Parts: sequence; C-alpha cells; structure tokens
Amino acid sequence: MTKIDPIELSRALIKRPSVTPADEGALDVLEGVLKELGFKTTRLKFAEVDNLYAQFGETAPNLCFAGHTDVVPPGNEAAWASPPFDAEIKDGKLWGRGAADMKSAIAAFAAAASRAIEAGAVKGSLSFLITGDEEGPAINGTKKVLAWLHEQKIRINHCLVGEPSNPEIMGDMIKVGRRGSINCWLKVKGKQGHVAYPHRAQNPIPALLRKLLRLSETPLDDGYERFQPSNLEITDIHIGNPAHNVIPEKATARFNIRFNPNWTGPSIDAWLREQLDALATETGAKYELETIVSGEAFLTTDMNFLSLIADCVEKETDKRPEYSTSGGTSDARFIKDFAPVAEFGMVGATMHQTDEHVGLSDIETLTDIYEAIIAGYFQKFGGVQK
Amino acid sequence: MTKIDPIELSRALIKRPSVTPADEGALDVLEGVLKELGFKTTRLKFAEVDNLYAQFGETAPNLCFAGHTDVVPPGNEAAWASPPFDAEIKDGKLWGRGAADMKSAIAAFAAAASRAIEAGAVKGSLSFLITGDEEGPAINGTKKVLAWLHEQKIRINHCLVGEPSNPEIMGDMIKVGRRGSINCWLKVKGKQGHVAYPHRAQNPIPALLRKLLRLSETPLDDGYERFQPSNLEITDIHIGNPAHNVIPEKATARFNIRFNPNWTGPSIDAWLREQLDALATETGAKYELETIVSGEAFLTTDMNFLSLIADCVEKETDKRPEYSTSGGTSDARFIKDFAPVAEFGMVGATMHQTDEHVGLSDIETLTDIYEAIIAGYFQKFGGVQK
Ligand SMILES: [Zn+2]
Ligand SMILES: [Zn+2]
Repeated sequence: MTKIDPIELSRALIKRPSVTPADEGALDVLEGVLKELGFKTTRLKFAEVDNLYAQFGETAPNLCFAGHTDVVPPGNEAAWASPPFDAEIKDGKLWGRGAADMKSAIAAFAAAASRAIEAGAVKGSLSFLITGDEEGPAINGTKKVLAWLHEQKIRINHCLVGEPSNPEIMGDMIKVGRRGSINCWLKVKGKQGHVAYPHRAQNPIPALLRKLLRLSETPLDDGYERFQPSNLEITDIHIGNPAHNVIPEKATARFNIRFNPNWTGPSIDAWLREQLDALATETGAKYELETIVSGEAFLTTDMNFLSLIADCVEKETDKRPEYSTSGGTSDARFIKDFAPVAEFGMVGATMHQTDEHVGLSDIETLTDIYEAIIAGYFQKFGGVQK
Repeated sequence: MTKIDPIELSRALIKRPSVTPADEGALDVLEGVLKELGFKTTRLKFAEVDNLYAQFGETAPNLCFAGHTDVVPPGNEAAWASPPFDAEIKDGKLWGRGAADMKSAIAAFAAAASRAIEAGAVKGSLSFLITGDEEGPAINGTKKVLAWLHEQKIRINHCLVGEPSNPEIMGDMIKVGRRGSINCWLKVKGKQGHVAYPHRAQNPIPALLRKLLRLSETPLDDGYERFQPSNLEITDIHIGNPAHNVIPEKATARFNIRFNPNWTGPSIDAWLREQLDALATETGAKYELETIVSGEAFLTTDMNFLSLIADCVEKETDKRPEYSTSGGTSDARFIKDFAPVAEFGMVGATMHQTDEHVGLSDIETLTDIYEAIIAGYFQKFGGVQK
C-alpha cells in the first residue's frame, strides 16, 4: 500500500473546479484514493448533488471525518494571481479555490488515514462523509447522507469536521459548537397614495423602520458559556417603489439572527412576535412575520473527545487551541444530532476570497495532527463503545 | 362665427390618445377651433413634445388660460367600463382618460372664449398656453413656452390654470398656491461582511433607519397661512442584497418633502444636513445626501384676481369656493414667476383612475363660470394695466 502525499492530493482536488453543485470529478479522485487504502465506498446522489460515504473497518467505534469537496465560485478569475483551479505552488504556499475551505483538510485526513492504517492504529472503523453541497443550499448533502446512514444502521461514534477552524495560525481554534441561525422576513402593509395627500394614504415605511430598530436595538442576551451574545443583523429592505410622488403600499425587510443555546428557533420566533405585538399595540401598525430556522444552536460537551483533539493540536503546534463557537454555520449542525462533533482544519483567513491559499507546512502539520488524533482516538475509545 | 359646444369639443379631445409625450392630434383639434375664433396660433415643439400658444387680440391686459392635452396612461384598458379613449356619454356623464384632468376644462374655456368674443367682452387679449408635457417630466412644456414668450416680449398679465381643482363638487375649491416639492436621496455606507462576524463588518442599515426616523419624526413647521404643515414621506429604501448571510455595504433611501413658504428648497436642504450632521456626531455614521427641488412653494396674493374668480364661481354654483394650497404640483409653479396665477377646473375625484369621468352639467357650469370670469376680468382689469 502506498502512502498518500497530502499536498499532491490537495492539488489534485483543487484542479477539479467543483463549484457547488458541480463535482467535476473531485469525488472520483478521493474515492479512488480511499479504495486503494481498503475503504468500502458508496456514492450517494441526491438530485443534482453527488456525495460520498467511505468506511474502513466494520467494528465500533467509528470515527468519521466530515467535509465537502464543493467550493464557492472564484469570482473574477482575472483578479487571481494564478488561476483559481491551477493549484499552483509558490512561496511555500498552495494557491487555489478550496485550498483553505476545505480540500487540503480532506487530503490531510486521507494521508493521515493511510499512515494510521499502515501502522495498524485503526482499532475500529474510520470513515469519510464528504458532500458536494455544503456551500449551497445544503439540502441534498450531509443531511441526506446522515439519514441514509441511519437507515442503513451505520453508526458514527464521533465526528471531526475538517472546516478551516483556525482564524490566523494553525492551532488557533477548535470549533466545539455553533450558534443557531434563523432567517426572518418582516412585512408591513399600509395604503398606497400620493405624497401630496399623506392623510389619505398610510405609509408603511416608518412603521417598518420603528419595528426593525426596536428589534435590532433590544439585546437578546449577554452570551452563554462559550458563546457570544445572540445577534440580529438587518440584511435587506425591499420597497420597490419607482415613483417619487407615490407612498408605497407595503415594505418588507429581511434579517438574520445568530443565537446561542439560550434560545431555540421557536423561542426566537415567539420573542420576535412578542416584541412586534407590543409595538403594534403602541403604534397600530400590523405586521406579517415569517421565519425559517436554518440551524439550532449546539455545544459539544464530550470533553474526552474535545481534549483528545486539543492535546494532539498542542503536541504538534505547541499551542493550546481555544474552544470556540464563533463564526458561521457548517454541516456540524446536522451531525450533532447523531454524534459528538468538533471542527478542526486549515487556517481560514483567505477562505471564499480571491487568492485563497494555505501554507504547505500547515498541510503537513494538519496531517500530523490528524494522524495523532486517529491513533489517540482508538487508544481512548477503542473497545469502550460498541 | 360658430359657437363651440364644450361637450363635443371635450369628446373630440378625449378621442385623441395623447398619453405623454404623444400628441396624437389633440393639439390640432384645439388649434383648428381657436383659429376659427380668430386666435393667432403658434406651435412650439421642444424635443419630442408639442405645445401650443394661441392669442386673441394684441393689447393688454392678457388673460391666459393654461393647461395640458397630455394624459396619464389608462392602465389596464380591460378594467374600464367603456374604452378610455371612446369618450362615451352615459348616465349624464362623460367617461374617458382626460375627462377630469383636463381636456374638459380646455373645451370649456374654448367655448367660453367663443361666447365672450361674440359678445365683444374681450377688451384686451385672451390666450391659451397648452402643453403636451405636464404629466411627464415637464421639461419641454410650459417652462420652455414661458421662456419663449419672454423672448418674444409677449406678456401674460394673469393666468388661470384649468387643473381639476375641485375635490368633490363643482365650486369646492380654487387653488391659490402650491407647496414646494423636493426629492431627496440619502445614502449610508458601511462595510460589507458576514452576518456571523458582525464585529468585522459595519451594517449601514440601522444607521440609515435612525436617520430616516429622526427626519420623518421631526416636525418641519405648524403650517403657513393657507398652507398645511410641511411633510416628509419616505418613498423607497434600496439595499439590493440577495444573500441571507451577508451584511450589505450600503443602504439608500428616497424621500419627498412637500413644503410651505416657511421654506425654500435650499433652506430645506440645509435643515436636512443640520439634522443629519447632528445625528452623525452622535452615532459616527457618515451619510451622503442629494436633493433636487422640483418646485418652490408659492402663494398668489393678488386678491383682485382671486376674488373675481371666487365671485364668478359663487354666482354660478351658489357655493363660495375655498382658497386652498393643498395637493400636488402643477405647471402653476412655473407660471407664478411671470404672472399672478390661480387654478380652477373640473371635479378631480376620478383623475388618473380607471373610469375617469365628469358630469355633463359640470362641463356646462364650468363653461358659464369661465365666461363670467373672462367678462369680469376685462371689466376689472381692462385699461388698468398696459
Ligand atoms: Zn467549508
Ligand atoms: Zn392635470
């Protein structure tokens, strides 16, 4: 069995322009490598999205590595110093879309797996859950693969997500939970009319603005354990009135709330309606509110698992990583319902940007960390769980 | 010389679908009638807009009737009980686009002129200033005709504008001035970012909302003589952010202020900047403001002229009309720089609406009122002014 070079595999993956939902052969590259290592692989296609589940071994415990091969669009390719899908190596760095988020982490874990397997360290099962729909709507990706695993009675005992968790330097941070996220649409209806006759019309805009300011200026909480305070951001207001002399009939706003475990999606929704109802009583202006929860808040509390990861990171980087819940959502929000989950991957400083890149030495370090985690995992959990 | 039937002439004008800036022969109809009465006519074409100036007599004083043959679009023609350009007569009413605003008033004044000329009552000059660009941008209409008259040293001594001044019943109201109008664009720039990292971004929306609420909730004044209080209406907010998880970079709002003679365009602009600067000092959020004055406020104070109109209205309707400055702008805003101006025309209740219509008896009454005004005008002002 040949060992895998994590940098070469990163380059092979980056060269596939797998902008969501396109795959362009990225999963084939990974599947081929894992098959050679003895993984049993299954491709799971949901609608236009391709996904891969691969497992080495058949016994418990099953340590799963989760990630995605899809990437965000490169934007203006001419603005890149080297073409985004050329995976150029220059100045000790690997450049390209997906270098940080998160093809290098997938390659690092595959390389670490090859070493662990060769060393006979996998006393249980090692698996990959890789989706092509993390940067997109995330409907036909991890969520459906997890449902399929559940149907197949395939159990994951712990999951490590390879998202770029380090803000600046390799070893900065392990993500041990995520805030919840809820998207909200608020509409106020008035009565259309001419600006010269405001008493015959009812302008919905001031009423909407008062509601939005009330909501955005009322603190939701002061934070929760490892979490920042919950936060509301108004992201859009739509009136769509082209006329200078017309008072519009309706006004709509969109906002997003990132919330900590003080809240659930339904409790946020109830709080919003309470605030808006109180204001409606004061001002008489009625409203319509729609909310869609895109993820509930969660915090991983399995300290045996978290400290294993932190110890391995510290051993390889001489830095004790911070346990954090900051940042955006990831597919960990789906996985947390099935197994304790933590996120550790590359440095994310350039993710989603022009000239996305990572240090070559960081890819090597991450491979070492992952190798230590795999070995440590089966020492710590092997035989404990069925 | 034949007398003109105001209802037949109204119908002939309505049958020309002269939606701004199209003329479709409407001015030809009027010009032909006025030529027969002995008017000297001049067509004035500016860009795509056709206009007409017609004068009977050569001596002072010159009483001018001002109006427009253009109409607003009919909207969904299928929604009309009878086609908008058929000028159908039914139930004692004349139906069609332009019936109220303001082809019937033009016809009534032409009919009144024919009677006054036949009676030898025109002891001076009688003129028509008719534009095809009142409902549109009003750039190539009355304003340019007035400049042309000024160049030609043709003086107007008093002007009666035939806009539908009566809200409900013939004789309700004479417009003796208009509020000014200023369109304003307010922009706040922040810093784009991800909703999950609000501390790295700067959301421009709350800052814009606070500015807008401050402006819309601060009274400008308590009114002025015959004027309502000045009033600000927010008409549009534009963010244009399609993403749920992105804090936008900038937010723009549009608002309109209708102001009384307590203010001028520049003084409103200065007041806005004062309010916004004070708020910027409090909150640190910078802004950009653009304003365009579409008309200054004015009040006609020539009580000899106003009382003549009011007396004639009262004589024909048994109602003393109210002197008012309410409502939207009209071309009177341009004329007031050249001569005392007042507005009296049809009942405007259905103007700009589906099934626009006027009462046939109202057309007859308006013709009688106009005839009385013409006769009274030359008795009162004839020989007084050169
Ligand atoms: Zn990612
Ligand atoms: Zn009009």
